[in-house]
Amino acid sequence: MKHTDFLDKLSERYAAKAMNGQVVPEDKLQRILEATRLAPTSSGLQPFEVFIITNDEIKAKIRKVAWDQPQVTDCSHLMVFAAWDTYTEDRINHMFDLTNEIRGFKNEGWENYRQFLLSIYPQRSAEENFQHAARQTYIALMAAMTQAEYEAVDCVPMEGFTPDDVDQILGLAEKGLKSTLLLPLGYRDAENDWLVNLPKVRKPMEQLVNYID
Amino acid sequence: MKHTDFLDKLSERYAAKAMNGQVVPEDKLQRILEATRLAPTSSGLQPFEVFIITNDEIKAKIRKVAWDQPQVTDCSHLMVFAAWDTYTEDRINHMFDLTNEIRGFKNEGWENYRQFLLSIYPQRSAEENFQHAARQTYIALMAAMTQAEYEAVDCVPMEGFTPDDVDQILGLAEKGLKSTLLLPLGYRDAENDWLVNLPKVRKPMEQLVNYID
Repeated sequence: MKHTDFLDKLSERYAAKAMNGQVVPEDKLQRILEATRLAPTSSGLQPFEVFIITNDEIKAKIRKVAWDQPQVTDCSHLMVFAAWDTYTEDRINHMFDLTNEIRGFKNEGWENYRQFLLSIYPQRSAEENFQHAARQTYIALMAAMTQAEYEAVDCVPMEGFTPDDVDQILGLAEKGLKSTLLLPLGYRDAENDWLVNLPKVRKPMEQLVNYID
Repeated sequence: MKHTDFLDKLSERYAAKAMNGQVVPEDKLQRILEATRLAPTSSGLQPFEVFIITNDEIKAKIRKVAWDQPQVTDCSHLMVFAAWDTYTEDRINHMFDLTNEIRGFKNEGWENYRQFLLSIYPQRSAEENFQHAARQTYIALMAAMTQAEYEAVDCVPMEGFTPDDVDQILGLAEKGLKSTLLLPLGYRDAENDWLVNLPKVRKPMEQLVNYID
């Protein structure tokens, strides 16, 4: 591996504006999901679930509430990120218990940290908790997008949809979830994609970074 | 490159709980910043700046408002992510103008999209806009963390600090920024790191993924 492998992937990727319906092989999909699963999150709580939609009717319904963006139906798998609508005692305890189970012992510092989170998160407003959980889905999104690039699978991250409508289509409220991001996975339709050959635009480094020596 | 290169990196990384003060070489730092710069963001607006702090006094001040976490001072470079406090017409126009400059032409669809954003973002509350911008910094965080792993540089993402205090220490309000994340970059102090040898804990796939066929 070279130091620049990941930078090359970041440079090569782009947000596919048209997709051709070709199916992403199952092994590639599973590795994209594994990257999503391995992504770091605040306190390791992984406060979200993802939905992998291949059902054409559901895709079509979501397209209608996603500014009619064609990739929603022309992708292979439509990935939906959905964050916990709040942090509850049960949800926090579940992850701490899982940690103890996997590590095979209780760590006093870790148990104190559990109590610390239990004393803060469940008491906060659901909205504050949801906003915090939603941010974590952006880390997982980046992990999924990166793995997709390693698989030569195209994707396009989307915030342009009505979360309440997607929540209703997928029945997310009953699961205590709220949608935050769509990520159609598939293959570019290069002939119909206005963006595919345009150069990537990023701020120059001096507009991004400040040094405090 | 193998399909699993990035998955290996995700598996190898961990949140360093103790650092030894060793300095990260400049070329590694610059590649970590380049990954940050190349990270995708909503509408390509890159609504944030980063601060690279090596000044010991400033590090010590920030440690005091970051739960006294030792990595804040024992790291090589303390990276601070700071999101735009709101979206303004100027900020939006700047990125669209930069795009036209780099691509060398005006695209009608892109200009329509500029007008669409100008008709929505500046009219929303600063809080709603900041929350949106803040989410984008989590994508950039993941890009920086991934590149750090490719550089064999340790890091630890932190939300455990008082943003208002960090904003004051760095004078962020005057720049129209608000801090969202700290990322100390450096090298692990393995002997004093309770987490270094513990297995990574993640939810099993069936608790993360829902299939809608």
